[in-house]
Amino acid sequence: MDCIFCEIKNRKADAEILFEDENVIAFLDIQPINYGHTLVVPKNHYDNFLTIPKDELSKLMQATQFIAGAVKRSMNADGFNVVSNNGSSAGQSVYHFHFHIIPRFNKDFSLKPSFKTYSSGAMKDYANQVRTFISKYRDIYYE
Amino acid sequence: MDCIFCEIKNRKADAEILFEDENVIAFLDIQPINYGHTLVVPKNHYDNFLTIPKDELSKLMQATQFIAGAVKRSMNADGFNVVSNNGSSAGQSVYHFHFHIIPRFNKDFSLKPSFKTYSSGAMKDYANQVRTFISKYRDIYYE
Repeated sequence: MDCIFCEIKNRKADAEILFEDENVIAFLDIQPINYGHTLVVPKNHYDNFLTIPKDELSKLMQATQFIAGAVKRSMNADGFNVVSNNGSSAGQSVYHFHFHIIPRFNKDFSLKPSFKTYSSGAMKDYANQVRTFISKYRDIYYE
Repeated sequence: MDCIFCEIKNRKADAEILFEDENVIAFLDIQPINYGHTLVVPKNHYDNFLTIPKDELSKLMQATQFIAGAVKRSMNADGFNVVSNNGSSAGQSVYHFHFHIIPRFNKDFSLKPSFKTYSSGAMKDYANQVRTFISKYRDIYYE
């Protein structure tokens, strides 16, 4: 199987990993709509939203909720989208189910995306900002 | 409180309701990106994704997964998006947390939305198509 998200999970491909537990891994999207744009991914490989088992979906959503709070606060965002694209007609590009967390800022909202790029070193800086919040609140959220 | 989704839940406002259980209500979006565009809403009022309790989020996602399958199949869609907008900067217009299920068709995908309108009677017809699948598979999914 040639799945980039499985490769990231297995440390065969690099990513700015922000969060990991038994069921879930989260890392920065390399083609962000805004800096801090994060992907939350079940460790087990399912093609899309319809094929992930209910119990794993629940665990994924708890992690997504927690990480969304960390992304919003660490990026000082005004809002955020939580998005799952299923099928090429819906914009899915990696066929390993995942949720996007996209931080949003007042007046930047447009459904037409303009992808940003991270300049050298910036990706790690943004990742570290999110990680600071995640490590601060993780025990409280999951207690 | 002046919340249109609470009014729909309490039958004080009309909607094409597709699904309802103890925790969740789902109905057609009156301003669809594609016909069959559905909103899945927790019955309890929470402003956004960060404030819904974990157990209610789990129940909402199970219903969302089930309804997404019914919407995709009944609309004969090629794919679908599952989207939660949080904050005005993210496009949230009703401050009662909800997920959008947006059916997608090959080559129609664009992140720039063009909202459709339902012609007279058509909304009920689309709702009935989705309801047929929901009633057919509900017991299987929730067994």
